[in-house]
Amino acid sequence: MHGKYRPLWLNDNGDLEVLDQRYLPHETKIRKLTTGAEATEAISDMTVRGAGVIGNVAAMGVYLLAREFGDDKARIKEEAMKIRASRPTAVNLMWAVDRMLNVIEKSNDILTDAKAEAIAICDEDVKRSETIGKIGCDIIEKIMQEKNLGKINILTHCNAGWLAIIDSGTALAPIYEARRRGIDVHVWVDETRPRNQGANLTSWELLDAGIDHTIIADNTGGHLMQHNMVDMAITGADRVTRCGDAANKIGTYLKALAANDNAVPFYVALPLSTFDFESCNGVEEIDIEMRSEDEIHIMRGIDSEGNPQELRVTPVGAKGANYGFDVTPARLITGLITEAGLIEANESEIKGLI
Amino acid sequence: MHGKYRPLWLNDNGDLEVLDQRYLPHETKIRKLTTGAEATEAISDMTVRGAGVIGNVAAMGVYLLAREFGDDKARIKEEAMKIRASRPTAVNLMWAVDRMLNVIEKSNDILTDAKAEAIAICDEDVKRSETIGKIGCDIIEKIMQEKNLGKINILTHCNAGWLAIIDSGTALAPIYEARRRGIDVHVWVDETRPRNQGANLTSWELLDAGIDHTIIADNTGGHLMQHNMVDMAITGADRVTRCGDAANKIGTYLKALAANDNAVPFYVALPLSTFDFESCNGVEEIDIEMRSEDEIHIMRGIDSEGNPQELRVTPVGAKGANYGFDVTPARLITGLITEAGLIEANESEIKGLI
Repeated sequence: MHGKYRPLWLNDNGDLEVLDQRYLPHETKIRKLTTGAEATEAISDMTVRGAGVIGNVAAMGVYLLAREFGDDKARIKEEAMKIRASRPTAVNLMWAVDRMLNVIEKSNDILTDAKAEAIAICDEDVKRSETIGKIGCDIIEKIMQEKNLGKINILTHCNAGWLAIIDSGTALAPIYEARRRGIDVHVWVDETRPRNQGANLTSWELLDAGIDHTIIADNTGGHLMQHNMVDMAITGADRVTRCGDAANKIGTYLKALAANDNAVPFYVALPLSTFDFESCNGVEEIDIEMRSEDEIHIMRGIDSEGNPQELRVTPVGAKGANYGFDVTPARLITGLITEAGLIEANESEIKGLI
Repeated sequence: MHGKYRPLWLNDNGDLEVLDQRYLPHETKIRKLTTGAEATEAISDMTVRGAGVIGNVAAMGVYLLAREFGDDKARIKEEAMKIRASRPTAVNLMWAVDRMLNVIEKSNDILTDAKAEAIAICDEDVKRSETIGKIGCDIIEKIMQEKNLGKINILTHCNAGWLAIIDSGTALAPIYEARRRGIDVHVWVDETRPRNQGANLTSWELLDAGIDHTIIADNTGGHLMQHNMVDMAITGADRVTRCGDAANKIGTYLKALAANDNAVPFYVALPLSTFDFESCNGVEEIDIEMRSEDEIHIMRGIDSEGNPQELRVTPVGAKGANYGFDVTPARLITGLITEAGLIEANESEIKGLI
């Protein structure tokens, strides 16, 4: 299952290896995970991140538990609950753990079945991502036709590329597909403070793919939209309620407001596994992760000699608050791009998917 | 004219000394300016920034020109035009240079009159700032009464404190006044990428004043407003049109959209000198400065031993775009707090001021 656009794979010993995304773009480090507890830690400390990949590593983490605890289903389940709780907002995490536990519950050959199921969960994401890319790219072509554009400017927030969902992402999948179709595309990449997934990960992916893009401060998108410099926005999601409210990286809501104010189409791309059918009002019902304030204070980069370093960028003694996600109400979303098709962000269309 | 809350002053030799704001909060450096060209550079490279202080340094820069060029009014005027063009968006800059040139035009003792006028421009800002503080604080008290709050949460963007307008700012003046009145206030401080004036300057000011505050990524304000954690927002402005559209630090528009979406009062505080009566539609008519993309790529901070350092935070080879300001349409502004009173952001109320 090793591939260029996969940020996780099993090595020959059956250990899980992941690209350590905390060090990108300045360093490429691989981290080996041999236990369920290590998988929990890797999700929690953001060694791996992105809705799909969190689910993948969670599934692989349950397989690692099966390797640790053999036939002790009760123990596996108990430990799997720790993986399931490693981040509160991303629903793929819960979905993947539950799916693994269902298989294990019924299995007579736990290790074999758990490994196969975890691999299947990863492999299925490839297909989902490919389909989302095609459907999203059809939208890109439609917008270009309607506006008679030779080149399209797409704004994205955070990272929903192959580092987030193997192997071409959700929000970036239509852009990769546009590239394959020979469409001239330019991407406005929101830096995405405080962890800079846009500047660090999306830009790194797009540089690697040779796709024209420009990093901007998160403050900038509204101005660009006011001046007709954004033709569409696409983001991923960490959880979408059955009524269409989308939890995604903090700041997504602000871009959706600006898109709405300037009649810029705003799309959210997600696999069906990101829907949370239990909740409707996302602002009220979705638990938003609060992370360490160190992520506000400390920034990572390279010094003038290219050596990785960390700096404190805020005054010593200042407090910070670090909310990981916000919720974009369905009313601000033009459409949801899923592997089952493009739908509107409302309860009847979402329920119609399943 | 030296005072604790003044970021610029004349030394005993008649040179201008300014607090070099590029190095705050990690280092306190004073930069001496002896010529008009140095004043231009200090404004352009953001040694000094903030609507009022830019105007102050511009006025002082014209006085430095008078010192350089004696009675040569034509030459002074020619050189003053370079100061006037050192940043395109801030209107106080143009206002201060024009006022200085008017005095010089009529003067028989240019050096004396220019010095006196430049000092007057600075001193007047103290009064303006004080009045804005009182009017703004009355609004704070009114909101607290209406919502029955024991403590008020105020969000601000960028820095409009005494580093921006001597000697208590515009947006921060009501907060300093609240402190004097014994009001319990907490400030959400937008980091304000890419130059981090919130994290670097506003937090530094508030720490010094002992005012409770929390630094947040610029992405965060919408989420806080959705969850009723912001009672009001106040920002400064670099230019406000006669119709009430406000150019301010990039990202202000996004916060105004979120405030509007969540019924959070959104105020802009400014001296009358920040009005631009020549323009009405700010989005179409205000020239937005584009600064070096290095400000996106390079961040300044201190290493683990407390030494100031700079790091590159984006992938080598990535492009950045750095728009300095955006325009918040008048329809999103609850009120304009000026030294002449609180008014609505519309043409008739603004024209009524003068």
